[in-house]
Amino acid sequence: MEINGIEIEDTYAEAFPIKIARVLITGATKHWALVAATEATGFGTSVIACPAEAGIEKVVCGSETPDGRPGVYVQICTFGYKGLEEQLMNRLGQCVLTAPTAHMYNGLPDAQKQFDTGFKLKFFGDGQEFELDVGGRKAFGIPMMEGDFITEHSIGAVEGIAGGNFFMLAENKMAALTAAEAAVDAIAEVEGVITPFPGGIVASGSKVGANTYSFMHATSNEKFSPSIKDKVEGSNVPADVNGIYEIVINGLNEKVISEATRAGIEAAIQIPGMKKISAGNFGGTLGPYKFKLHDIMK
Amino acid sequence: MEINGIEIEDTYAEAFPIKIARVLITGATKHWALVAATEATGFGTSVIACPAEAGIEKVVCGSETPDGRPGVYVQICTFGYKGLEEQLMNRLGQCVLTAPTAHMYNGLPDAQKQFDTGFKLKFFGDGQEFELDVGGRKAFGIPMMEGDFITEHSIGAVEGIAGGNFFMLAENKMAALTAAEAAVDAIAEVEGVITPFPGGIVASGSKVGANTYSFMHATSNEKFSPSIKDKVEGSNVPADVNGIYEIVINGLNEKVISEATRAGIEAAIQIPGMKKISAGNFGGTLGPYKFKLHDIMK
Amino acid sequence: MEINGIEIEDTYAEAFPIKIARVLITGATKHWALVAATEATGFGTSVIACPAEAGIEKVVCGSETPDGRPGVYVQICTFGYKGLEEQLMNRLGQCVLTAPTAHMYNGLPDAQKQFDTGFKLKFFGDGQEFELDVGGRKAFGIPMMEGDFITEHSIGAVEGIAGGNFFMLAENKMAALTAAEAAVDAIAEVEGVITPFPGGIVASGSKVGANTYSFMHATSNEKFSPSIKDKVEGSNVPADVNGIYEIVINGLNEKVISEATRAGIEAAIQIPGMKKISAGNFGGTLGPYKFKLHDIMK
Amino acid sequence: MEINGIEIEDTYAEAFPIKIARVLITGATKHWALVAATEATGFGTSVIACPAEAGIEKVVCGSETPDGRPGVYVQICTFGYKGLEEQLMNRLGQCVLTAPTAHMYNGLPDAQKQFDTGFKLKFFGDGQEFELDVGGRKAFGIPMMEGDFITEHSIGAVEGIAGGNFFMLAENKMAALTAAEAAVDAIAEVEGVITPFPGGIVASGSKVGANTYSFMHATSNEKFSPSIKDKVEGSNVPADVNGIYEIVINGLNEKVISEATRAGIEAAIQIPGMKKISAGNFGGTLGPYKFKLHDIMK
Repeated sequence: MEINGIEIEDTYAEAFPIKIARVLITGATKHWALVAATEATGFGTSVIACPAEAGIEKVVCGSETPDGRPGVYVQICTFGYKGLEEQLMNRLGQCVLTAPTAHMYNGLPDAQKQFDTGFKLKFFGDGQEFELDVGGRKAFGIPMMEGDFITEHSIGAVEGIAGGNFFMLAENKMAALTAAEAAVDAIAEVEGVITPFPGGIVASGSKVGANTYSFMHATSNEKFSPSIKDKVEGSNVPADVNGIYEIVINGLNEKVISEATRAGIEAAIQIPGMKKISAGNFGGTLGPYKFKLHDIMK
Repeated sequence: MEINGIEIEDTYAEAFPIKIARVLITGATKHWALVAATEATGFGTSVIACPAEAGIEKVVCGSETPDGRPGVYVQICTFGYKGLEEQLMNRLGQCVLTAPTAHMYNGLPDAQKQFDTGFKLKFFGDGQEFELDVGGRKAFGIPMMEGDFITEHSIGAVEGIAGGNFFMLAENKMAALTAAEAAVDAIAEVEGVITPFPGGIVASGSKVGANTYSFMHATSNEKFSPSIKDKVEGSNVPADVNGIYEIVINGLNEKVISEATRAGIEAAIQIPGMKKISAGNFGGTLGPYKFKLHDIMK
Repeated sequence: MEINGIEIEDTYAEAFPIKIARVLITGATKHWALVAATEATGFGTSVIACPAEAGIEKVVCGSETPDGRPGVYVQICTFGYKGLEEQLMNRLGQCVLTAPTAHMYNGLPDAQKQFDTGFKLKFFGDGQEFELDVGGRKAFGIPMMEGDFITEHSIGAVEGIAGGNFFMLAENKMAALTAAEAAVDAIAEVEGVITPFPGGIVASGSKVGANTYSFMHATSNEKFSPSIKDKVEGSNVPADVNGIYEIVINGLNEKVISEATRAGIEAAIQIPGMKKISAGNFGGTLGPYKFKLHDIMK
Repeated sequence: MEINGIEIEDTYAEAFPIKIARVLITGATKHWALVAATEATGFGTSVIACPAEAGIEKVVCGSETPDGRPGVYVQICTFGYKGLEEQLMNRLGQCVLTAPTAHMYNGLPDAQKQFDTGFKLKFFGDGQEFELDVGGRKAFGIPMMEGDFITEHSIGAVEGIAGGNFFMLAENKMAALTAAEAAVDAIAEVEGVITPFPGGIVASGSKVGANTYSFMHATSNEKFSPSIKDKVEGSNVPADVNGIYEIVINGLNEKVISEATRAGIEAAIQIPGMKKISAGNFGGTLGPYKFKLHDIMK
């Protein structure tokens, strides 16, 4: 399959279930909402060695938030609900409650699973806290240095999907990277997904296990490494490709990940120097979800 | 003491020792170096419930880095060296190795304490990695999707200081916040320090322990809470103050924290609506370092 | 009238007709589209002494542009069509054609008034230019250093409105400014309008003519100047107000300016320290359009 | 000559005299100083059809400005002093006086040529203005909506140089553009220079006159146009080059332009996909200044 002269490989992204909490962080201005959201979702690329996968989903204006101020939806993801509750307490308590002008609301008020993170944070108020209603939401006010911090009682979570992905193969590194940046911009417009890696982009695709160092659980995917394409038997790097980036997508359900994949690929293939789109899978052994590129792009 | 018509309270910031590792992250452009540095230092405001305190120290141009590319110095801080090594492995392995165009170098090459984080990361190369010299530094190249990731062998660390601080008390929240933003800008010019909270600013000053909820280790400092100043006996909030922000400073030694405190206060007191500068301490029970505002500002 | 505890004065903004051209600038990424748009709309606050009033209207993603790349709508405004054509030639020829990866399309393809700016720019191709169709639009490709610059044949214009406005009066400067920033963020979500002043905000409201210097056509509005409120007879600055900012809004028609005014005021009154909303008029002598705050906010 | 495997062509940039005024714009924060500076220097790429060439030179912190606030140096350039005075009045009066929290100071207080722009702007105060001293500088305060606007009496200017330049030729557009971005970042560290084009970068190198359209004074330089390299006789585009960007540098004297050229080239040649550095001249017919790449890079 070819679009815009770029080959779309007949392959699929393999993805797996993850628990996702969704939080709406508001601020006095869009800038301050983003400051809190950025801190709260940092150190959150991969659960391999980060305490959670986390990212900014979308920015909304005051007409779409309970308190009439601009806001940012973020997602925080872990494999289990126990770890997720801990991450909510720590990330929201340390990075949102402490952030200038930030307040926090439930990003999934209709989900079955609800954590009482706001209720637990209220004890920081040491008896001075109070209950209030914000746009129909049960919330607490905690007097602190800047004034009152507002937090909704609960934060909802669902079982979503992690590891949606696609690869951009290009003539060189900068063309691949610009394609990745354009793809991340486009995916940012899709509701319900995040791209948790730095700037939304992965520079280091990995394989499960290792050929040489048996003590490693994951190592660089040498078959997608351009600098050694001539040394590695069975390399998947075409002769005219010298730079590859991957975008990893987490999201609330299969539909939004498909939409994000499509939006990302459509943006990436506009970039001069792009050669091919591929995706990462483990032969179906890792995850139950398959996102077939040809189905998504047809 | 009064400067620019603003009262500088005769008090001191109380600070304590912490272990600090310093890393230089370079990128193809300043933008991409900052993307990696931001992800690697996120979720890093306070060791109370973050796995580390972390922040961006300064941006440098290519003439000041081993590989001739623009770079960003970051600091990562924990109480012990064991936890610090783990944070280096996880934050650098997950947020710098994975970041587009980012490479990493030792930010304290002359420190006695050195972690072989780069050496350990090289195993991700699964036998395809190679040793090289970058501007006189011993480094490894790891072939991956984008090309070769470069990491210096070691990352140095020292015993530094956490918890330097000062408070900005203002007529309202926005005046206090603009003062804090101006202070953070000014502190960013001081070598050797970070301001680890969101946007460099703390909205929620705390006290040790609790009056009401004995199970809490730290709670909101009600004596510096403007919204309840009329209800709290012994409130430290003046009648004309309705917003307070704190800046917390970590740094390599006492000298740089003093410099940063001075630079921050000098910037903050330029802002219309500012009323007073104070600082936080625990009566000398918590930390061995005292930063007296009157000594610093004289 | 009071909303959120803030007085909305019973007054109106007086506005006048202006000619508005609307251009869609696309780029390889959102960043590069914004770089071109920012340069093309600079030095464009007021036709009093700028060659045009100009600003960024909104950012759109690739699915909404003729070439599938992210884009930015800008408006360029002058009193007459002759001056407008000159501004289009100069601003687009010097700041978009020259900008990295930028292409330009008609932002008002259905308007009656059309300038053949793209046709005229093609002569820069010196005979090497070619005609092409981009998403159903007649366009030209001009070979240059970066590759081919693409410009649509025509740029449309309409008679719109300049000078929609409102004032934010606050306890101090920083509170008023944060309110203005929040208002500009909110107005950015309204289609069809721009806020042409620096950062969207006016620090210097003016009156027509002068009391003292008769050679001046416009001077500072001393009745809205907080620092001299006690010296000026008939000052409109309340006792508790020490900072005022104005937002000026240009737009395609009365409806979008009303919407923008409402969105801006709703955002501004969320900010702590805000005291009052007002608006600027000249007693109906200057312009035929009146935007009554009480009608807009009811 | 080859550096880092990239050919540096044995050629020179040809540059010519221009009048340069230098202004220091301060703000409550770095952000607000940049907002004013960006507006004041927009629509300022080339005097061919912009009213001036203009750009941001550097950001300084409060310890380096007369009023203790962060600031931004900008340069505004025209061929004659008469046009320069008009541009100062219009750009500073419309884009700095009107900008939130911005004040303006003389960026060349020791220059022989001084314009009394600040003195003239004071008449906007309509008799309410006052004289004051700011850090030893004679200044005026003008009461307006936000409070008092401060402007120094005079703005200095010198005869400087416009048109310093170099070209980055790369395998494709994105590699060339990333090289250009890295170069602009590096040049931003050099005191005394600006890169006036959008984002500091020129996408459209031109030649004097035309081959086909004799009514055009400047047209695209077809010999440096990659998309038609196979059609144009005597094309200077190598077979392996498909994207070229130029950086144009204005500056106070030959020394700073040489330094900026060197810093920019050193940064650009770090980028993967870069093939060659060249420069633009007109055979010595246009300007008296020659910047030989081999001299600068040796």
